[in-house]
Amino acid sequence: MSGAAGRLYLVPNTLDFGVEMAAGEAPDLRELLPMSVLRVAAGLTHWVAENAKSTRAFLKRVDAVVPLSQPLQQLSILELPRPHKGGSRAGPAADLSGLLAPALQGLDLGLISEAGLPAVADPGAALVQAAHAARVPVIALPGANSLVLALAASGLNGQSFAFAGYLPVEASSRAARIRELEASSRRGQQTQLMIETPYRNEALLAALLAHLQPTTRLSVSVGLTLPCGTTRTDSVQAWRAAPGALRADIPAVFAFLAA
Amino acid sequence: MSGAAGRLYLVPNTLDFGVEMAAGEAPDLRELLPMSVLRVAAGLTHWVAENAKSTRAFLKRVDAVVPLSQPLQQLSILELPRPHKGGSRAGPAADLSGLLAPALQGLDLGLISEAGLPAVADPGAALVQAAHAARVPVIALPGANSLVLALAASGLNGQSFAFAGYLPVEASSRAARIRELEASSRRGQQTQLMIETPYRNEALLAALLAHLQPTTRLSVSVGLTLPCGTTRTDSVQAWRAAPGALRADIPAVFAFLAA
Repeated sequence: MSGAAGRLYLVPNTLDFGVEMAAGEAPDLRELLPMSVLRVAAGLTHWVAENAKSTRAFLKRVDAVVPLSQPLQQLSILELPRPHKGGSRAGPAADLSGLLAPALQGLDLGLISEAGLPAVADPGAALVQAAHAARVPVIALPGANSLVLALAASGLNGQSFAFAGYLPVEASSRAARIRELEASSRRGQQTQLMIETPYRNEALLAALLAHLQPTTRLSVSVGLTLPCGTTRTDSVQAWRAAPGALRADIPAVFAFLAA
Repeated sequence: MSGAAGRLYLVPNTLDFGVEMAAGEAPDLRELLPMSVLRVAAGLTHWVAENAKSTRAFLKRVDAVVPLSQPLQQLSILELPRPHKGGSRAGPAADLSGLLAPALQGLDLGLISEAGLPAVADPGAALVQAAHAARVPVIALPGANSLVLALAASGLNGQSFAFAGYLPVEASSRAARIRELEASSRRGQQTQLMIETPYRNEALLAALLAHLQPTTRLSVSVGLTLPCGTTRTDSVQAWRAAPGALRADIPAVFAFLAA
């Protein structure tokens, strides 16, 4: 084992994961990420990923701007253990110390999600925790995060906010959870943020419109950072009068603030 | 009034505001922000700013990479009304419709903070709200946000988190608030995020170490995105044994998660 530990870099991915794009249509990564991030990413030889395939696609886009320090085929890309259903915990600690091994041997290691920042509304926090426990320095690199962009664009309270993960899928539990979050929002004038898998965007919007108070302000951001991106903020009453339609193929972020 | 409204762009600033740098030492903005953001910023002729002086400094750095569409002296840069002490509200609505006037006349308008994203733990939400009310499209551009970078780097729960703004300064109210946030954290396994003005970093750390439970995990990120940036996550017990020192001249983000 060489002396100092390597660093664990949290590398932001773009927010266009899963968006249908014609070949060659994906924008130059310099448009979406700072050069310092691309340079660090191009230099890393060991990766831990939410998904190896999307990581290779990301690294091809990096390589088009800053040549990778080693050919893509020679990079080590290991996947995070799948999170337990509905839980925030990753698999057993043993797996994680294996993933962390390169850093313990003095090599810098990248952690990357399919979209956005790792470990925020995404897997990876357990690996970061293991890194701190092993005294591996952790460096989060700047990039787009859909929750915080949606919050900024909402015009709702940015001085007090909370994200509570996915809502329950079952209708009555979901309704109860929405009412509970609205009560929290009212008590602390706290903006509540939530996300859903895109094909359930419409169902979540319908549930919010059914269960929130008419005067609660609801904001829906769709396709953040994409050319088609929009944000609408209106009272629940105004949404009910003209609900519009949500695309089922691109991610949305929902935010509300009780009056 | 021309037909369509202009857009309100929320433009991210860097996180190096107030950091002492030798002349010419500020890094090229391409290192810190995506090109798409720099291009939009260079094209805007009307701005609403937390601070006009820091906005001019930002625009000089933009101009070094993408020439501004008009000379800096000819740009309109108006300041947001100062928020009421301790409150999240901006001044009277009348001021805001004045600030929004260029967008209503069809011109794109930029909103920018001294550091990070506008309207998130920063002024600007009231202007965004006024934009939605006037049907001005709002577009949040991607950039670094210190809260979300600190959360990612903490290794604490990124599936459930809350930001509650500044804590009270008075000692007994502050202690009560810390205990209240720790109870919330325990109930929902919710990471609690907070910030402080840099010269009070040490005082906030001391208060957290005095009032949190020994098994609560506390993370402190200092100087995010700066070369000197570090994140330490440890149990309160381990922090108490070796508290270290926090710099009083650069921003820090504090996060904790109760066991």
